[in-house]
Amino acid sequence: MAELWIKALSGIPLIQPGDDLSKIIYKALEVNHIQLQDQDVLVISSKIVSKAEGRFVDLSTVTPSETALQIAQETHKDPRIVHLVLQESVAISRKAPHVLIVQHRLGFVSANAGIDQSNVGENREMVLLLPENPDASAERIRQAFDNKIGVIISDSHGRPFRLGNVGVAIGVAGLPALVDLRGQSDLFGYELRISIQGYADLIASAAHLVCGEGNEGLPVVLIRGLTYTQTNGRANDLNRPPEQDLYR
Amino acid sequence: MAELWIKALSGIPLIQPGDDLSKIIYKALEVNHIQLQDQDVLVISSKIVSKAEGRFVDLSTVTPSETALQIAQETHKDPRIVHLVLQESVAISRKAPHVLIVQHRLGFVSANAGIDQSNVGENREMVLLLPENPDASAERIRQAFDNKIGVIISDSHGRPFRLGNVGVAIGVAGLPALVDLRGQSDLFGYELRISIQGYADLIASAAHLVCGEGNEGLPVVLIRGLTYTQTNGRANDLNRPPEQDLYR
Repeated sequence: MAELWIKALSGIPLIQPGDDLSKIIYKALEVNHIQLQDQDVLVISSKIVSKAEGRFVDLSTVTPSETALQIAQETHKDPRIVHLVLQESVAISRKAPHVLIVQHRLGFVSANAGIDQSNVGENREMVLLLPENPDASAERIRQAFDNKIGVIISDSHGRPFRLGNVGVAIGVAGLPALVDLRGQSDLFGYELRISIQGYADLIASAAHLVCGEGNEGLPVVLIRGLTYTQTNGRANDLNRPPEQDLYR
Repeated sequence: MAELWIKALSGIPLIQPGDDLSKIIYKALEVNHIQLQDQDVLVISSKIVSKAEGRFVDLSTVTPSETALQIAQETHKDPRIVHLVLQESVAISRKAPHVLIVQHRLGFVSANAGIDQSNVGENREMVLLLPENPDASAERIRQAFDNKIGVIISDSHGRPFRLGNVGVAIGVAGLPALVDLRGQSDLFGYELRISIQGYADLIASAAHLVCGEGNEGLPVVLIRGLTYTQTNGRANDLNRPPEQDLYR
């Protein structure tokens, strides 16, 4: 637990719809001379999962709804993007000029429902939705490897109070999303004040230190040295229930 | 940038008021057979910085104000703790039974102004305030080493929308707190949608994966392999200005 090795895999090609990510990662591990070990964690950018799953939308095919047109006017956004954001969401959290923050159908709160207009391809009219079911995508990749590994599908989120994006886990397989330290005693035997770690989010943030967000093309990161109980954590474990949220 | 090594230093003793943390870290590096290199980053738990700075308060010496008594009743909290929370804060963000979230005098928003009742000592009536000026504490430690290193004083924060604590930087020296990726182009030459990284917070979260929060006693973490521009980042760079915050 006291030492980690974090490595972005080189040799991941541009991902196309239909690509088998497990095979591609398998090959990249060979190229990087890495043999997976039990408890290794692979952190995979949601972008390449979306691409492999063909989650592209050509904006020229989108006819914005009346609601989308209205919110687009309020937020000075492309009404076709707003239409897709609403389609991917269950509720609007905040809107303001150039800002549209929603509760995604997957449960988390984020800007523009995670819809991506960068690195999508040479066609500027093409955008990319988040994976259909990132937990299931993570589980598929986990099962493709013989070792008992963990898999996290990561995204980048802004946040209230603090500037700068951080990594978050939107898909989890083979490891806990949260680690509950309650009941563990501290150095003096008292119960811990700070009790639950956002474990999968910590891992996603650690991976973001090496994968970059620009043109590095390093969408898969291996983390070795973590010690966790192999449980079926789910990304939704990280979503604070609205009734426990004083800010929603 | 593509590979990191993260190591929690063993051999850090229990810290007492007046201890020279730089000397203690220097010795721990020797014990761990580590020679610092330029661009190494030391992530130091705010708790040991507070202890070295003697930021203890004996609750039996605290006479709660009228306001503290009233808020303590609303929140079912110890009025003496509430008194200290208010003293360390500039505004209340949210209050509810068992919850008191404030804007700390240092600028960030957190529960209970970061006042710590765990791992403080054998005296249950003793609590620990955050360091007086964590940026200055980080800078002092940075200057004690010959190499051009970065230093982060870290704390653990809860957050809106998501469960589980994550690492945050409340003190920064020798490295940027935020990394602005705007202007960098993505793989296809378009401008990046996601533009600013919460760099020092990512580093603090990565360190939390190895330092634990319980009885491990691993309050100093070395991170090697980061590539950053040596700038005078400050923890306050990470605080979102209230006028840019739709949730405050």
